[in-house]
Amino acid sequence: MALDVNPFLIPHLARPTGTRILFVVLDGLGGCLQPGVPTALERAACPHLDALAAEASLGRYVPIAPGITPGSGPGHFSIFGYDPVALDVGRGVLETLGLGIDVAPGDVTARANFATTGPDGRLTDRRAGRIATDEAAPLARALNAAIPRLEDVCVEIHPGLQHRFALVLRGPGLSDAVSDTDPQAEGVPPLEPTAATAAAAKAARVTAAFLAKAHAFLRGQTKANTVLLRGFSGRPSMPTLRDRARLTPLAIAAYPAYLGVARLLGMDVAPGVSPKSTVADEVTALERAWAGPHDFFFLHVKGTDSAGEDGDEDRKARVIEEFDRELPRIRALQPDVILITGDHSTPGPMKAHSFHAVPFLLAGPWVEPDEQTRFDERACAAGRFGGWFPALSLFPMAMACAGKLAKYGA
Amino acid sequence: MALDVNPFLIPHLARPTGTRILFVVLDGLGGCLQPGVPTALERAACPHLDALAAEASLGRYVPIAPGITPGSGPGHFSIFGYDPVALDVGRGVLETLGLGIDVAPGDVTARANFATTGPDGRLTDRRAGRIATDEAAPLARALNAAIPRLEDVCVEIHPGLQHRFALVLRGPGLSDAVSDTDPQAEGVPPLEPTAATAAAAKAARVTAAFLAKAHAFLRGQTKANTVLLRGFSGRPSMPTLRDRARLTPLAIAAYPAYLGVARLLGMDVAPGVSPKSTVADEVTALERAWAGPHDFFFLHVKGTDSAGEDGDEDRKARVIEEFDRELPRIRALQPDVILITGDHSTPGPMKAHSFHAVPFLLAGPWVEPDEQTRFDERACAAGRFGGWFPALSLFPMAMACAGKLAKYGA
Repeated sequence: MALDVNPFLIPHLARPTGTRILFVVLDGLGGCLQPGVPTALERAACPHLDALAAEASLGRYVPIAPGITPGSGPGHFSIFGYDPVALDVGRGVLETLGLGIDVAPGDVTARANFATTGPDGRLTDRRAGRIATDEAAPLARALNAAIPRLEDVCVEIHPGLQHRFALVLRGPGLSDAVSDTDPQAEGVPPLEPTAATAAAAKAARVTAAFLAKAHAFLRGQTKANTVLLRGFSGRPSMPTLRDRARLTPLAIAAYPAYLGVARLLGMDVAPGVSPKSTVADEVTALERAWAGPHDFFFLHVKGTDSAGEDGDEDRKARVIEEFDRELPRIRALQPDVILITGDHSTPGPMKAHSFHAVPFLLAGPWVEPDEQTRFDERACAAGRFGGWFPALSLFPMAMACAGKLAKYGA
Repeated sequence: MALDVNPFLIPHLARPTGTRILFVVLDGLGGCLQPGVPTALERAACPHLDALAAEASLGRYVPIAPGITPGSGPGHFSIFGYDPVALDVGRGVLETLGLGIDVAPGDVTARANFATTGPDGRLTDRRAGRIATDEAAPLARALNAAIPRLEDVCVEIHPGLQHRFALVLRGPGLSDAVSDTDPQAEGVPPLEPTAATAAAAKAARVTAAFLAKAHAFLRGQTKANTVLLRGFSGRPSMPTLRDRARLTPLAIAAYPAYLGVARLLGMDVAPGVSPKSTVADEVTALERAWAGPHDFFFLHVKGTDSAGEDGDEDRKARVIEEFDRELPRIRALQPDVILITGDHSTPGPMKAHSFHAVPFLLAGPWVEPDEQTRFDERACAAGRFGGWFPALSLFPMAMACAGKLAKYGA
């Protein structure tokens, strides 16, 4: 929606300084304003967020363009000032990077699932009964050992959570223009991988060979007796925040996909955080990192989105309150600029990501505070940044308030 | 001003659903807010529009870019999510398609007028005294019979309303880069058609030959003794709403130019509507079509613009009130999403199209209602969508609220 000047202006104007910026992403934070149905933010009692809102400037931002519902990847890229439509980063590479696996130029990755088929070859469970990680991870490792290479292509399988894993193909002449084999429905057989372009013929052929071998290998399993693949993608070539914005960034996040985004953008990853971490644990990781060399911090909280997806606005409100209780510890660190927002909206009544504008709060020395004293969608829509702020402008605005952008032109 | 993501994202994300969207275009609806001069919307008493406004979200949209006054074609294209600046669709092809004539790739069309010249060859009336259709149509048909072809080019003349007709040239090697022969003034002779590019030399030569023969043929006429041509254009190549947005669209419009837009976008055209139809007749056509297969409806009301062009704000207000009286019949059909707006502003005091932002109202299940309870320019400027909403975002926002756009990225 906004013309993206970031690729041209940020590299030209960014200057390293001693100031520190903190981006807090409460995943799926936003709700949908409807009469008589308070949003999670409206339900939550958040004295510390409200106190910060009173010193800050509020707004609602448009993640991609009005009416467009972003996935997590596009949502995060926008916040960090990268146009996801121009990037078109595949989810496969995000998951793989998120597992801590490096993806080099020329590699092809896909998101993989264990799944269950019946005797007739039709899918009976696309997630293999959400098989436990304890059970699925050894199976993934065994599969990795059983299929080390196909033709001249190295095959790697990296276990994820539950039924999920990542497939990485490394070898000459691969392209990621391969179709999903996940039919997104049960009662039908998995799809064949097909090449969308001539250049992808080899990758499709190797993928088909992998699936045949995997199916044979898994024959004895009751739940995880087949594999589904989707989101074939290569490593996108993009400048990191180090190169583009002259930052030394650090990510504090518990889940692979968000760490994947962070690594693509050149962020270091804070140790000691796992999917079992609480918000307090994440803030402890932030405190530990505060003495270090970083000047840009990305703190990701997952629970808000999960609760929204489950349609549980009260649980979503409790996660926001959990964050609110830790906010004084964050403020005690005295970050120069704080952005608190989501990567998209996940209204409980919709039980899904949505296109609704996302509430945000920006605080810092050169932010212009508005009249708002409460952090929720209504206050944000009435805040200084307005109800339709372009997502791609959040990052340069935060950089500017931290004194990290020089004048454009003499 | 807005980066147009529609060509990239809409085809990728659109999904057919059972929900139905209605776009009502009250042509030239907007006014210019000036002290002491109420706009037509402010004059009109519209209880049903106001009631719908209370449930809806309001805004004013910018048709092309701030300060740019759109013609009817660009205004409509923007609303349907097509960037008219990128398309550059000529008015000639819109009129011709609107008359029900198919325009194939390679054909060249122009809007034509009968006109009157004096003995010295200077124009005395650019519209031949607004000669009646009864008189002009037989003359157009006779001209069509008299000049069947020129060189290897088929020449077709299709009567329109009053002095208007369409010229269609079909043959090899034509280009539409031919200049208007209408000097847009009286007291001067018609202009010669000239080729703006080398590729248009043949089209300009054939056009000059046509005009010479037409002038000779019309010599005996007192009013319609010559022909003026403008808006030379070919069929633009553009995806239809069927291809781009996976819709099955229907148009309900009385006038040729609007049906032309509709046909270019792949809309079916509802029968039983003519320039003599009232708003009630159009709503009857909508009711009849409601049982059919369509999931996107475009209902066009012309009277608002005509009254604005005549500077008659009271008459414009009465047309709006006429629509308001029919609104309950529309709401009884229970469309999932309703957009009510104009294709541009036509403020009575200006007696012309203008650049002013256009009021709109969007209602539907995931729309976030605002505090506004009256449908006029002031309420729209204060509504949730704000006073400067980009026109190209109306279509994706309506699609999103109808559940017709999938998530972008996982």
